[in-house]
Amino acid sequence: MTLASLRTPSVLVDQQKLERNIERMQMAADARRIRLRPHAKTHKSPDLAQIQIARGAVGICCAKLGEAEVFADAGVADIRVPYPLNPANSARVLGLIDRIKFSFIVDNLDVAREWSRILSEASRTVDVLVKVDVGFHRCGIDPEAPDAADFVIRVAELPGLALRGLLSHAGHAYGAVSDAETASIAAAEARLLTTLRDKVSHAVGLEEISVGATPTARFSLREEGITELRPGNYIYYDRTQVALGAASWDDCALTVLARVVSRPASDRIILDAGSKTLTTDGARGAGDVSGFGAVLQSLDSTQPDQNLLVERLSEEHATVRVRAGASDLKPGDLVRIVPNHACVVSNLVDDVWLVNGNFALEQIDVRARGRIQ
Amino acid sequence: MTLASLRTPSVLVDQQKLERNIERMQMAADARRIRLRPHAKTHKSPDLAQIQIARGAVGICCAKLGEAEVFADAGVADIRVPYPLNPANSARVLGLIDRIKFSFIVDNLDVAREWSRILSEASRTVDVLVKVDVGFHRCGIDPEAPDAADFVIRVAELPGLALRGLLSHAGHAYGAVSDAETASIAAAEARLLTTLRDKVSHAVGLEEISVGATPTARFSLREEGITELRPGNYIYYDRTQVALGAASWDDCALTVLARVVSRPASDRIILDAGSKTLTTDGARGAGDVSGFGAVLQSLDSTQPDQNLLVERLSEEHATVRVRAGASDLKPGDLVRIVPNHACVVSNLVDDVWLVNGNFALEQIDVRARGRIQ
Repeated sequence: MTLASLRTPSVLVDQQKLERNIERMQMAADARRIRLRPHAKTHKSPDLAQIQIARGAVGICCAKLGEAEVFADAGVADIRVPYPLNPANSARVLGLIDRIKFSFIVDNLDVAREWSRILSEASRTVDVLVKVDVGFHRCGIDPEAPDAADFVIRVAELPGLALRGLLSHAGHAYGAVSDAETASIAAAEARLLTTLRDKVSHAVGLEEISVGATPTARFSLREEGITELRPGNYIYYDRTQVALGAASWDDCALTVLARVVSRPASDRIILDAGSKTLTTDGARGAGDVSGFGAVLQSLDSTQPDQNLLVERLSEEHATVRVRAGASDLKPGDLVRIVPNHACVVSNLVDDVWLVNGNFALEQIDVRARGRIQ
Repeated sequence: MTLASLRTPSVLVDQQKLERNIERMQMAADARRIRLRPHAKTHKSPDLAQIQIARGAVGICCAKLGEAEVFADAGVADIRVPYPLNPANSARVLGLIDRIKFSFIVDNLDVAREWSRILSEASRTVDVLVKVDVGFHRCGIDPEAPDAADFVIRVAELPGLALRGLLSHAGHAYGAVSDAETASIAAAEARLLTTLRDKVSHAVGLEEISVGATPTARFSLREEGITELRPGNYIYYDRTQVALGAASWDDCALTVLARVVSRPASDRIILDAGSKTLTTDGARGAGDVSGFGAVLQSLDSTQPDQNLLVERLSEEHATVRVRAGASDLKPGDLVRIVPNHACVVSNLVDDVWLVNGNFALEQIDVRARGRIQ
């Protein structure tokens, strides 16, 4: 089936790019003997997780219990949830630890104690990692605070919790504007984690130092002491990753196929993909990252048409401005768009089309879509 | 079942506010003998569309054919798609016109001619309206262009198309910062539409003048010549509508129930609702509309806590900054958030909870979620 016969908008995933992206990250991790544990939030598809695991990933990460339950049902046997799960969800956690290797993070002593109480009462033990804030300032303990080591040691002492190590997410690397800045964030992350590990080593042996973010992955690989890498976006990449230097346009495996539905002015093109497909997430990184995605030069091209700016999104329309010169796009014509952020696009559709060039091969079930709980 | 027993995050819809919002808009339209045709994109739920119709709505609007198909399957008998449908979808349109009263918009002569050819060949006729650009500059013909009247007359002459009237969407009213500005946009919209209607009246009798946008609805009701109102958001309202003066906080029927999952600093609270629930849509309107939603003062309150700013969203986290003073929110606590944009929140979940105060009554199926095609 050709792309022209698909309904629009559709989310396309290029099979060759997908497999190359999986292979490259796995080989890079293997070369450094670092375990790769991809974050499945990007694809939300058990089929794709199984490919990652078959290539050598030790398991996956999920963002929420609902995602973990979908992947566990599909046979994924080792799932880490790098999310500060609340004991309100204890019944679901107990359900998961009975059937898969499961782990999550803690960053609050009251929460950790409550988990300890629940797990002890249930005569179970669960693997946990302490979440460390390495500069993103979202969750996590401050590794340079006077009581950081004390926090780790207290968690290690709690019955029902088996402390495996330290875990961080350098999300602030999405704000970097150069490779040097990203490299420096990855280096600081490794230093903060290994310093804290060493500080508690007299009392607790921590086996794992887990970091994860696609922009920092290539630099984290150079650091000493890292045992696990948890990138998610690398399987697809997107406009942000290109702007951050983590990928080339040719690596972007996920695109949105859209159709011109109106051409009301010479400098204005209306497409049938709006925020319900592309989302209003902005792009990050260096250079001109304005607009809501990059329209490619043609269906066969991997390069963006710099003449076209996705200036505004309504829920079901993209308003594209023709910057200079002209465009002969007319109603009915198809375009491909590299989105600003691939993970959130996956979350909006029940299926994506696996494609090879201009041929649609099969639909992949995005089974963990929308599992926010 | 109390709110405390729900999984988080969950999308809640207050039954009393919902019914009051439906009733008020219907009564306002009835008082002016204007037909109300709510846009179903806000709720995407056949159950709620049936309530709107039972109260007096003449039918509904849908944004895409996929939505229309869901509502037609559920028994909604009159559906208008104010979207420039492309003839690539002709088989689906033919399927719909055989079973419901169906209409859509045209704004391009080549597209209209192709529809005419397809419908004539199939020996069918479909109702269409000409989409008029009244200042939003998305789709639609320019009503003040020299060839505007000619366009309308030519569409009216095409076999297979039954031209019913003119239709517009004053989406630029979302950029208004005062009631006076919104009123002026509504007045200009009515004037542009009725002027064009009058200009073609020697050749074509246009029965319908259809306008639709929640912020302008209260002002469009005062205008002469309007026959149909198509607001969508009014069924729920949201933070943007409050900032635009179209609603009060007490009218906001849709809220997101979220849980505190981390409290890493005195000025920082982490909630389990991120962009996968609230979306990164910004709020519009007057005053301080920064952040990604308004956290209410308590589960029982309808008023925002101005001390809490939803400063940043990750996919599954909201990072809330405590602006001044303190907050005693701790992990496990529940909060309610009025989102910036209710329509896009509906689109992210399979079900919403109908609630009455702190009691969850039943789940409503958001059956047309994700129907982007």
